[in-house]
Amino acid sequence: MDTQGRLTIRTLAMPGDTNPSGDIFGGWVLSQMDLAAGICAGQRAQTRVVTAAVDSMSFIQPVKVGDILGVYTQVSRVGRSSLDIHVEAWVRRGRIGVREKVTEATFKFVALDEQGKPTPIPAVEDLPEYVETGL
Amino acid sequence: MDTQGRLTIRTLAMPGDTNPSGDIFGGWVLSQMDLAAGICAGQRAQTRVVTAAVDSMSFIQPVKVGDILGVYTQVSRVGRSSLDIHVEAWVRRGRIGVREKVTEATFKFVALDEQGKPTPIPAVEDLPEYVETGL
Amino acid sequence: MDTQGRLTIRTLAMPGDTNPSGDIFGGWVLSQMDLAAGICAGQRAQTRVVTAAVDSMSFIQPVKVGDILGVYTQVSRVGRSSLDIHVEAWVRRGRIGVREKVTEATFKFVALDEQGKPTPIPAVEDLPEYVETGL
Amino acid sequence: MDTQGRLTIRTLAMPGDTNPSGDIFGGWVLSQMDLAAGICAGQRAQTRVVTAAVDSMSFIQPVKVGDILGVYTQVSRVGRSSLDIHVEAWVRRGRIGVREKVTEATFKFVALDEQGKPTPIPAVEDLPEYVETGL
Amino acid sequence: MDTQGRLTIRTLAMPGDTNPSGDIFGGWVLSQMDLAAGICAGQRAQTRVVTAAVDSMSFIQPVKVGDILGVYTQVSRVGRSSLDIHVEAWVRRGRIGVREKVTEATFKFVALDEQGKPTPIPAVEDLPEYVETGL
Amino acid sequence: MDTQGRLTIRTLAMPGDTNPSGDIFGGWVLSQMDLAAGICAGQRAQTRVVTAAVDSMSFIQPVKVGDILGVYTQVSRVGRSSLDIHVEAWVRRGRIGVREKVTEATFKFVALDEQGKPTPIPAVEDLPEYVETGL
Repeated sequence: MDTQGRLTIRTLAMPGDTNPSGDIFGGWVLSQMDLAAGICAGQRAQTRVVTAAVDSMSFIQPVKVGDILGVYTQVSRVGRSSLDIHVEAWVRRGRIGVREKVTEATFKFVALDEQGKPTPIPAVEDLPEYVETGL
Repeated sequence: MDTQGRLTIRTLAMPGDTNPSGDIFGGWVLSQMDLAAGICAGQRAQTRVVTAAVDSMSFIQPVKVGDILGVYTQVSRVGRSSLDIHVEAWVRRGRIGVREKVTEATFKFVALDEQGKPTPIPAVEDLPEYVETGL
Repeated sequence: MDTQGRLTIRTLAMPGDTNPSGDIFGGWVLSQMDLAAGICAGQRAQTRVVTAAVDSMSFIQPVKVGDILGVYTQVSRVGRSSLDIHVEAWVRRGRIGVREKVTEATFKFVALDEQGKPTPIPAVEDLPEYVETGL
Repeated sequence: MDTQGRLTIRTLAMPGDTNPSGDIFGGWVLSQMDLAAGICAGQRAQTRVVTAAVDSMSFIQPVKVGDILGVYTQVSRVGRSSLDIHVEAWVRRGRIGVREKVTEATFKFVALDEQGKPTPIPAVEDLPEYVETGL
Repeated sequence: MDTQGRLTIRTLAMPGDTNPSGDIFGGWVLSQMDLAAGICAGQRAQTRVVTAAVDSMSFIQPVKVGDILGVYTQVSRVGRSSLDIHVEAWVRRGRIGVREKVTEATFKFVALDEQGKPTPIPAVEDLPEYVETGL
Repeated sequence: MDTQGRLTIRTLAMPGDTNPSGDIFGGWVLSQMDLAAGICAGQRAQTRVVTAAVDSMSFIQPVKVGDILGVYTQVSRVGRSSLDIHVEAWVRRGRIGVREKVTEATFKFVALDEQGKPTPIPAVEDLPEYVETGL
């Protein structure tokens, strides 16, 4: 099984992020996915974006303390001033163990201009090169 | 417009929870909703629960620094060992201003026994009184 | 034994808030009480308030990881530009266990105008309805 | 005006600790005072201690972002298994500005043995030297 | 100018991480570099590692709120039971702006066995494939 | 063995600051050292300072939950607009146990004027008294 999309956020799950059961708190995972989706959407739109909706989020496995969390993002739909980002979260267990998908979801964003009004999303050919290459 | 469900989490949005645009970070709001949904599901199931999915989450308004955030929860479906919680997040702007709905969503949970296996959810008549009254 | 006052803050005690003994750090409980008292005082005064003093704070029981913490507040004295808020903190142990009072205290606040000068507190009949109903 | 007691906690007030008014959140200051009082009480009792009460806490000045906060502690009463710690919090404004007292209070602690039962507090002459010298 | 090494940590600099001057707190940047270096060293050593030293750390530019921080790591020396990791931290300003190197350093780690004793580092040909490919 | 320099930061290591191995996260220790060095440099320069480099940082012992961390600082070199601060971090184990040095390093800072340009560092005889006495 392979990741879809580009690595956007990568970090380590720490003891300070656990829930009372000892696993990583779901809200922390959601926060990392929201950050990653926002980075991807903002780079595609080349402007400020706000989250409008989240759909079909499924939790496949818990995240554990010491896992490396990688969040992968991919633009899955571009409208006039809104766009969808598919997000997958994967872990490498205990930094050196097996690799597993833990969550996936689709985030919908709206692109905003300086006044906070919806604004058109540029064509792909007008994007700076790093949006494709990720450097 | 009125809240649906019972007040489960209530807290104040602080400057340390902002995103680079100066509004409250979406991941913080998602975290509060996840906590509230988990409390509601755990009390209905009278056991440990894990989030399995989130559906139809829509962001209606941003949360601002100084808003009081109230998260309301309601059991919307009970299966054999899974259940759905409808969650609404409302704010009172600047602690003393107007009141607005900011987000809603449905969270699906699975009830787990001591070994982490799915376990049946008790009948309503077997629940302790506080699950209804909230005290 | 029953709570006095209105539910103002409600949240879940998480592992990241523990002290070296494994109980919830007292400063975290104090922080939640200060937030709750400030919300209650600000709504009664309909303006910005600052904490002037805390009196007779007694710690009855420790808070544990996984407890739901509820902070209840009640206006106990209103002066010309200062007011006292009685605060009680209660927990439901492990989200579904017994309910116990953990701390109580009285917080004194001063109401401030835009220039940071003490300002009169309005009469009860001039307050918006939500200050009574809590909605 | 001079500090009373020994410097027990010293740290910098950061933007992440502010309240919606832009000053440092009162709960953060209370947390630092609770930590400092607990260190002082634990060293005097040479065992684990728990906060039993806080009395006469008065807030004299707000703490601002960039202030250096110093918390000074002094044993003010020793009973059989309980003791009182007088705590003063001072700031140096903006790291290099004037010095002002911001808060003071008295914290009461109980000394506990391994089983969590109250335990006698040792005589001063039985204490290790660092409790006096602070090194 | 190009990055050296592999992307190991990537995250967004948030307002809660600022210092009193409004830039991102240096300790937060150091923390991300320490995490990244530890991940790289642990994967190369295939065991637990501890930081022994940091050398030649230079701060070239400040990190600002809203920057995407990417930390790149590369094994620069492997001894019997110690290894050096070269770390570079880069930002993309304001999520969609220019790209700049902000800090670099060399971290030295020691590989430890289950008892916390130094343990030999495996040969490159004995490493799992992901250590090279980063997937 | 004795500390060199003046006590600049003193705080308690809490469970929320641990790494996946259960010791205190190295980045937290680095953060406290960076804060302490910055306070010392800012007071010597009597203006805003930025970290330019860190040299010869060695980690001698891990910090454990419940340790009191004390960070000691000393000006080791003063140039025209830059200065070096030697930093030592010591712990008292478990609040009442033995005392040990855990880390040391040298931090280099640049003094900046209001426009963010390097600015001369004042002569020792022009400093306010508290820079020497630490009160």
